[in-house]
Amino acid sequence: MESIMHHAWQRGFRCLPRTSALLSRSHSSCAEHATNPASASSRHVTPTLLVSRLYQPSNLRDVGQDSRLPGEMTCKSQRLMQQAGLIHPSSPGCYYYLPATVRSMEKLVRLIDQEMQGIGGQKLDMPSLCSAELWKSSERWDLMGKELFRLKDRHGADYCLGPTHEEAVTTLVAHQTTLSYRQLPLLLYQITRKFRDEPKPRFGLLRGREFYMKDMYSFDVNEEAAYQTYESVCQAYTRLFSRLGLRCVQVQADTGNIGGKLSHEFQLPADIGEDRLLVCGSCSFSANVETVSAGRTDCPQCKTGTLVESKGIEVGHTFYLGTKYSHIFNATFSNAQNKPTIAEMGCYGLGVTRILAAAIEVMSTEEGIRWPGLLAPYQVCVVPPKKGSKVDEAAGLAEELVHTFGETLPCLRGEVVLDDRTNMTIGKRLKDASRLGYPYVVVIGQAALEEIPRFEVICQQTGEMMFLSKDGLVDLLGRVETV
Amino acid sequence: MESIMHHAWQRGFRCLPRTSALLSRSHSSCAEHATNPASASSRHVTPTLLVSRLYQPSNLRDVGQDSRLPGEMTCKSQRLMQQAGLIHPSSPGCYYYLPATVRSMEKLVRLIDQEMQGIGGQKLDMPSLCSAELWKSSERWDLMGKELFRLKDRHGADYCLGPTHEEAVTTLVAHQTTLSYRQLPLLLYQITRKFRDEPKPRFGLLRGREFYMKDMYSFDVNEEAAYQTYESVCQAYTRLFSRLGLRCVQVQADTGNIGGKLSHEFQLPADIGEDRLLVCGSCSFSANVETVSAGRTDCPQCKTGTLVESKGIEVGHTFYLGTKYSHIFNATFSNAQNKPTIAEMGCYGLGVTRILAAAIEVMSTEEGIRWPGLLAPYQVCVVPPKKGSKVDEAAGLAEELVHTFGETLPCLRGEVVLDDRTNMTIGKRLKDASRLGYPYVVVIGQAALEEIPRFEVICQQTGEMMFLSKDGLVDLLGRVETV
Repeated sequence: MESIMHHAWQRGFRCLPRTSALLSRSHSSCAEHATNPASASSRHVTPTLLVSRLYQPSNLRDVGQDSRLPGEMTCKSQRLMQQAGLIHPSSPGCYYYLPATVRSMEKLVRLIDQEMQGIGGQKLDMPSLCSAELWKSSERWDLMGKELFRLKDRHGADYCLGPTHEEAVTTLVAHQTTLSYRQLPLLLYQITRKFRDEPKPRFGLLRGREFYMKDMYSFDVNEEAAYQTYESVCQAYTRLFSRLGLRCVQVQADTGNIGGKLSHEFQLPADIGEDRLLVCGSCSFSANVETVSAGRTDCPQCKTGTLVESKGIEVGHTFYLGTKYSHIFNATFSNAQNKPTIAEMGCYGLGVTRILAAAIEVMSTEEGIRWPGLLAPYQVCVVPPKKGSKVDEAAGLAEELVHTFGETLPCLRGEVVLDDRTNMTIGKRLKDASRLGYPYVVVIGQAALEEIPRFEVICQQTGEMMFLSKDGLVDLLGRVETV
Repeated sequence: MESIMHHAWQRGFRCLPRTSALLSRSHSSCAEHATNPASASSRHVTPTLLVSRLYQPSNLRDVGQDSRLPGEMTCKSQRLMQQAGLIHPSSPGCYYYLPATVRSMEKLVRLIDQEMQGIGGQKLDMPSLCSAELWKSSERWDLMGKELFRLKDRHGADYCLGPTHEEAVTTLVAHQTTLSYRQLPLLLYQITRKFRDEPKPRFGLLRGREFYMKDMYSFDVNEEAAYQTYESVCQAYTRLFSRLGLRCVQVQADTGNIGGKLSHEFQLPADIGEDRLLVCGSCSFSANVETVSAGRTDCPQCKTGTLVESKGIEVGHTFYLGTKYSHIFNATFSNAQNKPTIAEMGCYGLGVTRILAAAIEVMSTEEGIRWPGLLAPYQVCVVPPKKGSKVDEAAGLAEELVHTFGETLPCLRGEVVLDDRTNMTIGKRLKDASRLGYPYVVVIGQAALEEIPRFEVICQQTGEMMFLSKDGLVDLLGRVETV
């Protein structure tokens, strides 16, 4: 028994079953934590998150040197994300999303939820396994060709893995015999993993075979109402990208195999982009080249401007579908005269994992990731001095700072990490911090030894650097927006 | 333009692009809402959620009478969930999770995150498409037989849809050449959709072919440490079920095709349960019958007690794996002497969608769903009087109440719905409320006409009923725990 206790003590956090294993071991004692009632501690204790314990495999080593990793580095975001331990390739176009990416993605999902629910969207979750029958009804079973992952179940029945869910959602709505015009518009959306057997998966999360997508479907009483819904979704998309600080262009687009009458893409201008856009210099016209007659250089809208070509990464796509699917599956509602009427539909996609990678692609430097502030996995990294250095006596201030943030800044709960790798120089850890792109890096350096300690703060998004007192820090970080 | 405005007005919320389409139309005006800055309103406005607008398809009609719905009703939770518009069958063992279910599941996911992160778990997300190569390494490609959904990509490469991820996570950890003993235990988990081609999918979400599972994997320095990790996960599971108010038995179990040395199941006792348990009347021994010699009735632990058989629904399963997978994939860490050492592993599953259905199965009445309080999709339903009834003059109090809750009880944000179907009698709406199982139902009845209005509160989980003033209500509901 004694040997077990001794062992437990060596392992530090072992005797603290309710507190995080990422917790600072140096400051913990069993007695301290035993007073926390077990049922509450996971919600109320704010453990110190230690960089040494965060799972970012490869510990920032240069992935390019590892011959065992499949796939070549085809773009900046892929390289940066693999180097920082954010993603790891499994098979072509399929990636492990590592813990920091999951944190970032969960933030993006909350933002999307806010915007979709803000325009009345209701969130559901549809099966990935879609029966062939359903897809044959819309003729997409054949139309989609090799892009569709197909499989048979043990009884020989055919299924595909849904890359999109027009068939599924329309048949769901069709099953409700009592849908009234009063319940429209009905906006249903999901944020789930989608599958597409890309001929050439590449660019990391930008073009994968498995990815997360937000897909929304709208049902309206008539064409006019459907256009209004369409417009409100486009506005929500624009707000989303604006909150992320991303410059996004809404361009006229082709309807492709989804079909329908009207379509727009939301594009982030970027050299790596696979889409070619034509943007008018004189008016608001912008379009995917696919929708403009080849070689045309004059603007079809204002007739005077010249079309300039640029490249973009498609991060969103909207379609006004009309009755294409509702007609096939007989998705009707009772109108004011109590007569069954075919609903007008729209569908609206956002590439969730693609937005993450695209944001990193357009915002980052060659050496380090820069995040949209709201999506950074952690907002603050505190860097204490190197062990044995002359500033070492100020080391305690680091944990004090982290503790103060935890106590006074509830919006930063879980957002502050302590880079406890004090065997490394500050310079080396700052290089890591720059690669990972924490929006705020707080360094305990020389100035921390002054009578009123001051701390160096690096705002990595703007490149600003300043020296602040503890109060100044709390004031600055208290204004950080989180989601 | 005028006709558009007129149209917009008729549609009510149309002129409020940032506010929810589920919003009360009677109390909204464009001017009121236009003052909300667009970028903030989705987070700060608390719109009134209207029952008439919630997507619960079939509007509570009796699904059993609808011949178009596939699958028979094989248990209470399935019947109740379909009747209440919580789930909808698509193909055998595959369900649409409708909005109320998604809300409930998101709460369960937050609870699981708290408990897993409380013991140091780090959340990642692994691909669903798993290469055959990986599964052949562990020999499970053949062992799993028909339970594995298999498919080929466009190049003819073989994949399966992951029902569990021992191979994937172990190979991930093996790729990290620099893993140090200081970083162990390493606990990685995900909450994702899993696939299993069940021979007989049934019981709604209890045995499906697509389902959500939390799967955690642990890596430890040695056997003793691995047992401690195993124990800490079991404790976290016990805390989780205790917070849900579910009686859960931890039983000794068979290791099945996962393999390993030690295994426990977490079982909810229920008649519908597919597992047979033997529980000792004298000591703490309990086991799945599979692990006890057939016909044995004396307890193998205390030797004196008698084993009594009961049935259970398996909601969690833990395995101590030893080096079974780490050996195959060479998942090593550097020990204190800097020598590569094979990690000791464990794996730990929780059936997320199954917990939801199992909780409904064991807690509900035949007529209505009863939720673990923390998981109810909405905590409170306010029922105003029938239009034209003699209590109608108190109707305004309903919206006033909802508004007050929104202002004074931040933990109930998004948790209060108003049953605006005032063309229906209170009795009929109470019947619906009982079926859906809101923990608290507030009725604006006769007593609301008294000088100091009082409201009838029905606590559906306990069956209690009481009359409270507005202050009393705020006091009661302020103590509701949410996640």
